[in-house]
Amino acid sequence: MIAEKLRKIFLDTGADALFIETDYLRRYLTGFYATDGYAILTEDACRLVCDLRYFEAAEKRLRGSGIEVVEGGYEKALALAEPYPVLGVPFTETSVSALRRLEQAGHTAVDAMPALRSAMLYKTEEELSRIQTACNIAEDALISVLPELKEGMKERELAAILEYRMRSLGASGTSFDTIVAFGENGSVPHYETGSRTLKFGDPILIDYGCKYEGYCSDCTRTFLFGDDKKHGEFKALHARVLEAHELVKETVKAGMTGREADAVARSYLQKYGLAQYFTHSLGHGIGLLIHEFPTLSPRSDTVLENGMVFSDEPGVYLAGKAGVRIEDSVYLKDGNIVSFMTKTSRDCLIL
Amino acid sequence: MIAEKLRKIFLDTGADALFIETDYLRRYLTGFYATDGYAILTEDACRLVCDLRYFEAAEKRLRGSGIEVVEGGYEKALALAEPYPVLGVPFTETSVSALRRLEQAGHTAVDAMPALRSAMLYKTEEELSRIQTACNIAEDALISVLPELKEGMKERELAAILEYRMRSLGASGTSFDTIVAFGENGSVPHYETGSRTLKFGDPILIDYGCKYEGYCSDCTRTFLFGDDKKHGEFKALHARVLEAHELVKETVKAGMTGREADAVARSYLQKYGLAQYFTHSLGHGIGLLIHEFPTLSPRSDTVLENGMVFSDEPGVYLAGKAGVRIEDSVYLKDGNIVSFMTKTSRDCLIL
Repeated sequence: MIAEKLRKIFLDTGADALFIETDYLRRYLTGFYATDGYAILTEDACRLVCDLRYFEAAEKRLRGSGIEVVEGGYEKALALAEPYPVLGVPFTETSVSALRRLEQAGHTAVDAMPALRSAMLYKTEEELSRIQTACNIAEDALISVLPELKEGMKERELAAILEYRMRSLGASGTSFDTIVAFGENGSVPHYETGSRTLKFGDPILIDYGCKYEGYCSDCTRTFLFGDDKKHGEFKALHARVLEAHELVKETVKAGMTGREADAVARSYLQKYGLAQYFTHSLGHGIGLLIHEFPTLSPRSDTVLENGMVFSDEPGVYLAGKAGVRIEDSVYLKDGNIVSFMTKTSRDCLIL
Repeated sequence: MIAEKLRKIFLDTGADALFIETDYLRRYLTGFYATDGYAILTEDACRLVCDLRYFEAAEKRLRGSGIEVVEGGYEKALALAEPYPVLGVPFTETSVSALRRLEQAGHTAVDAMPALRSAMLYKTEEELSRIQTACNIAEDALISVLPELKEGMKERELAAILEYRMRSLGASGTSFDTIVAFGENGSVPHYETGSRTLKFGDPILIDYGCKYEGYCSDCTRTFLFGDDKKHGEFKALHARVLEAHELVKETVKAGMTGREADAVARSYLQKYGLAQYFTHSLGHGIGLLIHEFPTLSPRSDTVLENGMVFSDEPGVYLAGKAGVRIEDSVYLKDGNIVSFMTKTSRDCLIL
């Protein structure tokens, strides 16, 4: 017997079977991670094909799960898929070459991504627990790093230490390239961490996260390295962004659309003439990928519901001068937003 | 005027234009890295379409290169591609969704990957120099870490320190998940770094590398953490693998096939009854990807030529007991193999 979740994905796809080569989707369906392999899902069976590097570990891990482990590679997977003319494959994740191989074997393909995406919107307790651990590691790492900040340190040195601490605390890696921006570099929303050195009075923006058992965390903190009394405007910006961030947590409820959630922060910043500097969306879904659904933006019709995980990250950027972004990973429970992040301060710390 | 290299790729593809969305291929064609963007290559022009996050930096970097930078996103790229009915896209790197979007815009697609792959086999001086830097960083990091090995340390702690050092020395990240295997774990060729702690007398296998300006390094060293006099067999294995590794460097010449190169190591190990434990290929190409062409394996017909970069990594694995792999990143110059790695010892060090 396969889980109800898997059966629903199968039925929604409308294919004779799903044929999944993509690593994170294979992990989602089977709960087992391997760099290579194939998952084949039908109405009443889910089979994971993997080679000898993974076979023993997969068998052990998946015993009693209803998922059958089969040893082999692509030929084996193709043989198992042979009875199913129409295969569901995720079109955004499948290469043209991979599709052509299936077509040459006599199959036709339909897009399985919409059904997978719909299922992945709702996190299980186990998934929430992994995201919580990824968030805990990220916060503990930041707390341990703050006392070590010193003048003359490069952005990339701080990024390296933070990543090292997350790894030491049990993360398997980062969930994206760590952003550390000192001073005016914070005004670039997707800044590439460089060699700018830290000076007294500098604003610091850190946007970072890690992975734990495949699941991501995402966090941004902005604060000051000492107070040179020249950053009054920065402090005022910080206060407005923090208020917008907290307002989202208080106001956004299950049943609202992504557009309505985004508007909570955007219209608040509008009151202070700052909406034009809020140049990105309020948030994105978080799970096995750092950017998944739902999207919280002016163009999102997705209805937010219990069990969805996303970021709450308003930001304002005054080009060449200063930028502030404050971000928690959060989820919806019993209709309300709950933050995964309870350890680090979101205030404009002065270190 | 575009470079001769680009013109050859264009002509080999047989398309009216190349349309490249894949980040590392865009970087290869234009020399500029952005997480998003489009490269459009025709017989006499190469245009890079990127958004405002990257436009200014790209303009500055590419001035005088013959590559034109255009501000915009997908719509802009599509508009520029409009005059070209047949687009060359890399089929292994392009999703079914991306292909369908182009088809809906009236284009047909041919596979550009064979032409790109052929060009990417031969590294320019600039590419060799970046790989050299990536190798230098990897070796310097290992040298700095060795004195810090101590009993009780976990595999993943050592991996974290090594990665931190590479980052601090200027690497943008790892070229793959660092493998640190203590004791019997070394007998798993693609071991997943875990929490096994280091004990006196343990063999240590480290397979790691970093990226510098997009280009990868790849290195494996195997040695002993103290000598408990119980590892005679390990030492004997190490000696044979090292001899096979060095024999490849001395014997493999431009003009040989990947199969012939692989056979140099395999037939040497065969003489000692070890070929059956050499369960992978001798080597793989290294460049913007950690695994590219040429392949040095029993199934490879590729002729090795000057300017090609690959790994020389024989290994033997006695399941559950011990494993030894010794790997340098190397290239062919004036017909002979030159190693990028000259700083660390390949010997069976006893720390």
